[in-house]
Amino acid sequence: MSKIVSLPPKVLMLLTSDFVTARYEALRARAPDLEIVTELTMETDPDVTAVFAFKLPAGIAPRLPNLKLAASVGAGADGIISAPDLPAHVRITRAVEPGLGLSMAQYVSLQILRQFRMLPKMEQQHAAGEWRRLPVPDAREITVGVMGLGSIGAVVADVVAALGFNVIGWTRSDSRASRVPVFVGEQGMDPFLAQADFLVCLLPGTPQTARLLSRNQLAKLPKGSFVINVARGGIVVEDDLLALVNEGHLSGAALDVMSTEPLPTDSPLWRHEKILVTPHIAAQPSVGPVVEQFIENLHRLANGDPLLNEVDRIAGY
Amino acid sequence: MSKIVSLPPKVLMLLTSDFVTARYEALRARAPDLEIVTELTMETDPDVTAVFAFKLPAGIAPRLPNLKLAASVGAGADGIISAPDLPAHVRITRAVEPGLGLSMAQYVSLQILRQFRMLPKMEQQHAAGEWRRLPVPDAREITVGVMGLGSIGAVVADVVAALGFNVIGWTRSDSRASRVPVFVGEQGMDPFLAQADFLVCLLPGTPQTARLLSRNQLAKLPKGSFVINVARGGIVVEDDLLALVNEGHLSGAALDVMSTEPLPTDSPLWRHEKILVTPHIAAQPSVGPVVEQFIENLHRLANGDPLLNEVDRIAGY
Repeated sequence: MSKIVSLPPKVLMLLTSDFVTARYEALRARAPDLEIVTELTMETDPDVTAVFAFKLPAGIAPRLPNLKLAASVGAGADGIISAPDLPAHVRITRAVEPGLGLSMAQYVSLQILRQFRMLPKMEQQHAAGEWRRLPVPDAREITVGVMGLGSIGAVVADVVAALGFNVIGWTRSDSRASRVPVFVGEQGMDPFLAQADFLVCLLPGTPQTARLLSRNQLAKLPKGSFVINVARGGIVVEDDLLALVNEGHLSGAALDVMSTEPLPTDSPLWRHEKILVTPHIAAQPSVGPVVEQFIENLHRLANGDPLLNEVDRIAGY
Repeated sequence: MSKIVSLPPKVLMLLTSDFVTARYEALRARAPDLEIVTELTMETDPDVTAVFAFKLPAGIAPRLPNLKLAASVGAGADGIISAPDLPAHVRITRAVEPGLGLSMAQYVSLQILRQFRMLPKMEQQHAAGEWRRLPVPDAREITVGVMGLGSIGAVVADVVAALGFNVIGWTRSDSRASRVPVFVGEQGMDPFLAQADFLVCLLPGTPQTARLLSRNQLAKLPKGSFVINVARGGIVVEDDLLALVNEGHLSGAALDVMSTEPLPTDSPLWRHEKILVTPHIAAQPSVGPVVEQFIENLHRLANGDPLLNEVDRIAGY
């Protein structure tokens, strides 16, 4: 992965956030001879063969007649796949690296343990100078249900199991490599939800998962269940979740992703004391490995070799 | 372990806290025919052959001429060993069960992740309705040092490693079974401390460990290190720890055990915003397994069999 880089392609990066800008600067430093543009100055640019971005807005792809690769800077490629005008022959990749699953496992473990061990109560007692024992609950009696067992979900499931929790998984269509019991498909959904004292959403953002967790499904969780969404905001229907929390069916939620990001300032999710909103920071692929992966895929594309972490556009991941 | 219990011994339980009282009630329910007293009404009681307690105050043991077993209801036996008048022939046991290490690992993981992932900052932003990205640090660049790798410390070390942190261990005299690199004894202390971005104290409370972590040792930790004490309060010198936090050398501490418990209301540790005091709740042996273990040891004592989890009084654990 330490090849000297001198490549013919011209790359378009769309600097839609600081997150992308950091990857842009890292790529420029790593591959100073690579031609990178951040906007299109001509009506069409036949020299651009690759896009490296988080989102691909409508109107861009048709201006790139020789585009061959649309690489996501993030772990999800939904911002690329959802482009309505991306030709079918353009290949899509996403960013995968080992640290990503661990970062996600850390965030998820933190949110589970915060709720399970009553951290806010510990903090209140500390602030009040109050020495009063709290129960030490038994994790072996608590079931954590992980939806989505891809390269990230499988790591999260294994780490949460290592912490002593009973872990089960759910996948849409097949049983992935994981050490935990797995429920599959529509018929597996109800028995899975019925057991999940914590529900962790790690599904990819696809047309199939959009609004998958609405009131109808969330109501099947056991009373007192706690929801953690670290996947895509559109999967959990926020109004339904909020209603079930306010009705007391759910004990709360930790939400790192929103149907609209940034979450609008007037959202009732903000400041809710049973909910914790965090600004899409559960995990992110480390800059270095992701830039190396992109460069490697430019080489592979030129040589006709299989791409790293190529996305199946139909499946959505 | 489901034997019918009808035993000749008489057991003394000292109900010094709700914690012990819960075990007293469980033992009575489990072994209704066992004679259990909670105080001594005579000057001496030759019928008492076993004590089941957390602490054994001076003056009790000499009144029990036929005492054979002093069993701790907790994971540490220091409250028994420290009795100045317990005859050398009385055998001592402590409570060990698999859930204990996991509970401890959950508490320690929660405190590490709270600091590492800036949970208080997340909570502040949620309370302010502020969507501002926070850094996602890389756990592989952070070293957690676990002091004490017994039945609890080894589990904690393995779980924290599963979360993605670099983990090292320190033991007083020998290298215990653990998958992490281990530093041993006095000559291993300095290089161990110099690497520990988080210091987790899980040493037994013994005369050798009392005040082991004073300013002299704590100052060897890297700047910004965070201290977690879940062992015994006397091991970490609280005034020294507080001074190093206030001087900015340490970033903070989570303290579940204190040199005086309950922590006095006027302690400067309470309400300190870089410190979290919790009331000795990191972990506790589950009632059921501990009561079964005690009953089993009464049988073993009667039959002359080796006791479960017998403590070496000289080593202190």
